[in-house]
Amino acid sequence: QDLAKAREIYAVCSSCHGENGRATTVPQYPVIAGQNRAYLSNALKAYRDGKRQGTYASMMAAATRTLTDEEISALADYIAALK
Amino acid sequence: QDLAKAREIYAVCSSCHGENGRATTVPQYPVIAGQNRAYLSNALKAYRDGKRQGTYASMMAAATRTLTDEEISALADYIAALK
Repeated sequence: QDLAKAREIYAVCSSCHGENGRATTVPQYPVIAGQNRAYLSNALKAYRDGKRQGTYASMMAAATRTLTDEEISALADYIAALK
Repeated sequence: QDLAKAREIYAVCSSCHGENGRATTVPQYPVIAGQNRAYLSNALKAYRDGKRQGTYASMMAAATRTLTDEEISALADYIAALK
């Protein structure tokens, strides 16, 4: 997967999830670092494709709206590998 | 929160998520141990209340259908504390 591309995309995610993917400043946001890759990919697509509703779900829908399946795949690899 | 009650309820969850909440046998299921408590509570209610659709979401909807808010709160404490 394109690591540099994923890191670039992740810059947006880090604003809420933290650079290490373990932010707890807003406990309604999940820790994502080290999460199972297939779950991450499915969850990102669920948010993007409107399969999750709610306050935070709509924030994530906005954050993922333009991501392609390939970008989601690279992102899932990147986040799953965060320690 | 009622730890004994939460442990009893968690027995059902452990069949997929593992006793330690870190099962990776089915990578479409998330690691849940140590997840942020408020996220866990919101996610469990989202599944229970039909705010998440999809193959795995419907499995979780079935698993959470009968849980009360109090049970979800005790369960969220329990899972967040899993190491």
